[in-house]
Amino acid sequence: MAIAAPPRFDPAFRAQLAALFAWRRDVRRFSAEPLPEGTLEGLLDLATLAPSVGLSQPWRFVTVADAGRREAVRANFRACNAQALACQEGERAARYAALKLAGLDEAPCHFAVFNEDDPAQGRGLGRATMPETTAYSTVMAVHTLWLAARASGLGLGWVSILDPPTLTALLDVPRHWRFIGYFCLGMPSAQDDTPELERLGWECRSLRADQHLLR
Amino acid sequence: MAIAAPPRFDPAFRAQLAALFAWRRDVRRFSAEPLPEGTLEGLLDLATLAPSVGLSQPWRFVTVADAGRREAVRANFRACNAQALACQEGERAARYAALKLAGLDEAPCHFAVFNEDDPAQGRGLGRATMPETTAYSTVMAVHTLWLAARASGLGLGWVSILDPPTLTALLDVPRHWRFIGYFCLGMPSAQDDTPELERLGWECRSLRADQHLLR
Repeated sequence: MAIAAPPRFDPAFRAQLAALFAWRRDVRRFSAEPLPEGTLEGLLDLATLAPSVGLSQPWRFVTVADAGRREAVRANFRACNAQALACQEGERAARYAALKLAGLDEAPCHFAVFNEDDPAQGRGLGRATMPETTAYSTVMAVHTLWLAARASGLGLGWVSILDPPTLTALLDVPRHWRFIGYFCLGMPSAQDDTPELERLGWECRSLRADQHLLR
Repeated sequence: MAIAAPPRFDPAFRAQLAALFAWRRDVRRFSAEPLPEGTLEGLLDLATLAPSVGLSQPWRFVTVADAGRREAVRANFRACNAQALACQEGERAARYAALKLAGLDEAPCHFAVFNEDDPAQGRGLGRATMPETTAYSTVMAVHTLWLAARASGLGLGWVSILDPPTLTALLDVPRHWRFIGYFCLGMPSAQDDTPELERLGWECRSLRADQHLLR
């Protein structure tokens, strides 16, 4: 990276950053319009600027373009989602069934993210007592990509209603890679500053931090 | 939140956001100057805008102001760091010993972050097959705070060279809370776009994503 003066972030930038946090959504409703060439690659390069324990950069990105594999992922989602629905009781079951929890059918871009739990890079620094910090690093790379996508007008949806061992086998990656999540990327068909789960009455969120003070 | 038009993020904002990603650092060198009243609270409120599985908001923030507890945390860091040093061999051991891996002595603001692994909020949605997604949500809240801090000219340091059960006991939190990390916040004494571990020759990083394509 070129040597440069440290950037100065002014109040206008901070206000826009706060708006980015407030309007970032988990998107499940996409236009099927393909993304311009290189879009995902640009976002992935930004994601590599994420913090990682001991500079280990343990994230592994797998773009899924193959229609057969995409259909197999969808099938796994349907099975896991049906099981989750079966665990809901009474009125909650009807509410759960009405939710759209993934944009796997429409999103033009699909990718999976895996973690190398014990990478050579970083030489183990910072993770002897907390080996889970490599997975946490990969999650921060996902979050970096998510924010960058939203700043470009794109939406990301994180699909976690999947069976990790099935996904690892299905996507033909090294068996020791840890499945972190499966992601849909595309143009969102709507924008909102309130999560869909809140708008549809599934859950209310707090806008104040849960903070405990130890004096 | 007030109803508002969706914000438009223009190329100038995206360039500044990319600079924020590039200049965010894990900071271990702080000025001891106290933070203005309300600084941490403002950052924590922004952190609550982070994505969370099923809108579960499982993050729990614990500010550590007490000098005795801070010293106990430092003692645990010293013990864990000595053990990590003992595992390094030859020339690497000298290099490890020369690294400054935490700013626990100078940073004016200390807080710990925990995760409620099985919160009532969210009603379990999205995490039946991947319960670890609550911890991942908390990590994204930390990352949100980290970026917001840097945009305000502040530095954050993530201390992971600690023993989680010791920290949970020491900070007097519910035993079932999962320790995610301990954090130092304050004015950084320097700014750089290159991680200290790279500048000091511990590890080199890649600036291109590790991407695999499944056609």
